Amino acid sequence: MKSTTTTIDVSVSERWSYADLTEELERAIKDSGVTDGAAVAFCAHTTCALLINEWEDGALADFRRRVQQLVPEEMYYAHDDLERRTQNLAESHERQNGHSHVKSMLLSASSHAIPVAAGEPMFGRWQRLILFEMDEPKDRQIVFHVFGE
Amino acid sequence: MKSTTTTIDVSVSERWSYADLTEELERAIKDSGVTDGAAVAFCAHTTCALLINEWEDGALADFRRRVQQLVPEEMYYAHDDLERRTQNLAESHERQNGHSHVKSMLLSASSHAIPVAAGEPMFGRWQRLILFEMDEPKDRQIVFHVFGE
Amino acid sequence: MKSTTTTIDVSVSERWSYADLTEELERAIKDSGVTDGAAVAFCAHTTCALLINEWEDGALADFRRRVQQLVPEEMYYAHDDLERRTQNLAESHERQNGHSHVKSMLLSASSHAIPVAAGEPMFGRWQRLILFEMDEPKDRQIVFHVFGE
Repeated sequence: MKSTTTTIDVSVSERWSYADLTEELERAIKDSGVTDGAAVAFCAHTTCALLINEWEDGALADFRRRVQQLVPEEMYYAHDDLERRTQNLAESHERQNGHSHVKSMLLSASSHAIPVAAGEPMFGRWQRLILFEMDEPKDRQIVFHVFGE
Repeated sequence: MKSTTTTIDVSVSERWSYADLTEELERAIKDSGVTDGAAVAFCAHTTCALLINEWEDGALADFRRRVQQLVPEEMYYAHDDLERRTQNLAESHERQNGHSHVKSMLLSASSHAIPVAAGEPMFGRWQRLILFEMDEPKDRQIVFHVFGE
Repeated sequence: MKSTTTTIDVSVSERWSYADLTEELERAIKDSGVTDGAAVAFCAHTTCALLINEWEDGALADFRRRVQQLVPEEMYYAHDDLERRTQNLAESHERQNGHSHVKSMLLSASSHAIPVAAGEPMFGRWQRLILFEMDEPKDRQIVFHVFGE
């Protein structure tokens, strides 16, 4: 039984963009020496998400548009109301990202568990591991925990 | 390789409220003796959810409001139509909670897998494990399975 | 420490229908010989989802209707715009399933991690593992990775 944890740093260049992390996941699995087991992919943040889907620009644009419609930016968010808010205000400049928190909770995509066989994630033909940034571009940490034989 | 399963009982006092379970998760990890590995957090119910996000009252209120708008209570739910429904009617008084089931499936947040390092969940700065009750307050069981070295 | 990976083939007979995979999961756990541990259930596709909820026809119909309203089929999807699209066009006949990709990313339900005790998934009374087909009926592979003592 082997087990390894790897943290990678990633950031996207502009708002609302995506990053394909499939090769980083594959490398973490290779480096772990695990051939049969599973991998946990974990997003250590509250305003971005890890998706497993197809990397096709049209589908990713469709999804972004729909998420923006379901959780519009242009409405009142108590999280951004500095006249009312009292908690977690340590940062010098508080971002207006209430909508990003709501989107993140709606997707509930902080973690995935992916079976591993022959040293590869058992992804279907079109599946990719994708970071979806829903806040201003910033440094993000993604954790891979790989375990098995 | 160690592995422990812990079940905790939790209930919120009023409808649509949240409970912060981060300390319970941390305790389950400590008690397991695992320093490096992962933890599964599992919600054994069909009308509540486990979120990983920031505990900030405004953001949690924003999310609750948006979920209520996306899946309104005040509409027809076949699940609550006792003139049509035939399945799973064992309970003496059937709750009107069709909307809670739909919300729960939309969030799809029954389980999370969280890497563990140095005996702690590898949460980012603002991440907390949060129970979101979408039904009347009732006794809930949350399961933590911790495994690793 | 034992660990086994099983892939099952499943397909539904008509569009927008569900398949109860709880018995298949239970069988994979039994066959693994694991009595205490956890199971990963993984959907190796980009236009269907694995839900954990109650199998009650009304609730499942309610959910399907709501998902269709939140992500309507009858609108423009860049994924289906063959005049613009350039990626992943290997198939002879490209399906019009942009809406299915968006639904799949919104649910973010490719994987679940389920604790196992006494050789059974630790499901609550009403929980079932359910495949939700959001595309034309097709052959689907679901992977179960079971690990523990």
